[in-house]
Amino acid sequence: MLYFIGLGLGDVKDITVKGLEIVRQCSRVYLEAYTSILTVGKEALEEYYGHELLLILKGADVSDVAFLVVGDPFGATTHSDLVLRALNSGIQYRVIHNASIMNTVGCCGSQLYNFGETVSIVFWTDTWRPESFYDQIKKNRDMGLHTLCLLDTSAHLKIYEPPRYMTVAQAAEQLLEILQNRRDRDTVCVGLARIGAEDQTIRSGTLQELASCDLGGPLHSMIISGHLHPLEVDMLKLFSGPEGLKTLKMTDSSNYVS
Amino acid sequence: MLYFIGLGLGDVKDITVKGLEIVRQCSRVYLEAYTSILTVGKEALEEYYGHELLLILKGADVSDVAFLVVGDPFGATTHSDLVLRALNSGIQYRVIHNASIMNTVGCCGSQLYNFGETVSIVFWTDTWRPESFYDQIKKNRDMGLHTLCLLDTSAHLKIYEPPRYMTVAQAAEQLLEILQNRRDRDTVCVGLARIGAEDQTIRSGTLQELASCDLGGPLHSMIISGHLHPLEVDMLKLFSGPEGLKTLKMTDSSNYVS
Repeated sequence: MLYFIGLGLGDVKDITVKGLEIVRQCSRVYLEAYTSILTVGKEALEEYYGHELLLILKGADVSDVAFLVVGDPFGATTHSDLVLRALNSGIQYRVIHNASIMNTVGCCGSQLYNFGETVSIVFWTDTWRPESFYDQIKKNRDMGLHTLCLLDTSAHLKIYEPPRYMTVAQAAEQLLEILQNRRDRDTVCVGLARIGAEDQTIRSGTLQELASCDLGGPLHSMIISGHLHPLEVDMLKLFSGPEGLKTLKMTDSSNYVS
Repeated sequence: MLYFIGLGLGDVKDITVKGLEIVRQCSRVYLEAYTSILTVGKEALEEYYGHELLLILKGADVSDVAFLVVGDPFGATTHSDLVLRALNSGIQYRVIHNASIMNTVGCCGSQLYNFGETVSIVFWTDTWRPESFYDQIKKNRDMGLHTLCLLDTSAHLKIYEPPRYMTVAQAAEQLLEILQNRRDRDTVCVGLARIGAEDQTIRSGTLQELASCDLGGPLHSMIISGHLHPLEVDMLKLFSGPEGLKTLKMTDSSNYVS
């Protein structure tokens, strides 16, 4: 049996009881560390699970094998390819679900029902400055929907450079450059850092405000709000600085629905 | 401290290790059983957690109190109102996240990034037959996006009647009535039942096929596909019956992108 086990987003104890029991009984345990990162290292996981973790997937065999995925196994990147290859080899699989950024983003009070398509924001280079994510955000905005922006985690400007994680401030700056003088510079945005971890940080405000905020270490993501329900506004005020509070009261009326 | 603790979707062991530790140390533990249901009863939870569960929220006090929510605490219904009332009374809160239908729906291989706005399908009565959810589905379809349809769980035709849970077959029937002779009757749909539980069941096919399938007990939900990536098609084939397989090969080309 090949088990896909979600680890959640925080630390070692965010694995489910079911997931932990399976990990401890498996003969081999693999860790997928590509698409997301926990706020604790591989060593902390190994100590807590009582298992060495193998970083490279070598294929499943006849014994029980666990494949650990930060967040939910099908949350950020689907592991469909691995599922299909396993089944083709006669290996059964089972998924142990957990929280991922796709649902925990609701912790800032923004209604998950009101999100449109998720977009990815990539690091610009001197020669490559794609703006397509803005068109997707605008489409959602035009329908009154919020947009979850997943921020670049994989850019390597040079080979052998360590991975870089885009911050909310960097994403806000890129969006401001695209927007220039348009009026939706006042849109209510939310920066989210290390959701699920002890030191998770949420900050709401305009792009301008988020461009100058420091939310600390990775992973960061961002919401561009659509139509806001009064209760959503009340929640977002919890996460705004003194200026942000003002902004949330004064922002253009298209953000509000009574 | 008021803890919001996600229970995940399956059985008692889908709580996280962190969540279980907190539940066992809290002085009072409340269970929210409105928006979703676990596949095990309240008694099984009480036995596993070693705690009596109170079904009615009476407000938080000075000791540690846990509020248990099936899925993720902010997954289906935001508990923003409770958060705001707690903070107004000087009570701190903390969220322990978990999987919810909003992210586990990826288990059928449909890319979470490619979902548009989520819709709710309600039971029709003789005099009330809203079709607004179809317009939302169509908007998503026109942009090539999938739609997660949450099915009615709260309809009471008469006072004192037990809650009823809409099945995939019932939802498919209502959609077919709306569609009548339109061509998107061939759209690839996915019925999902009891996701996260041992006996979870997934079935892909046309609305016609889903209208006659029996996926067993609640909760059910449904995906109306938008543009399908070949890998998504391969995954959905895993969940189709003999007829469904044919349908997935022969369906109109707008469902596929190369």
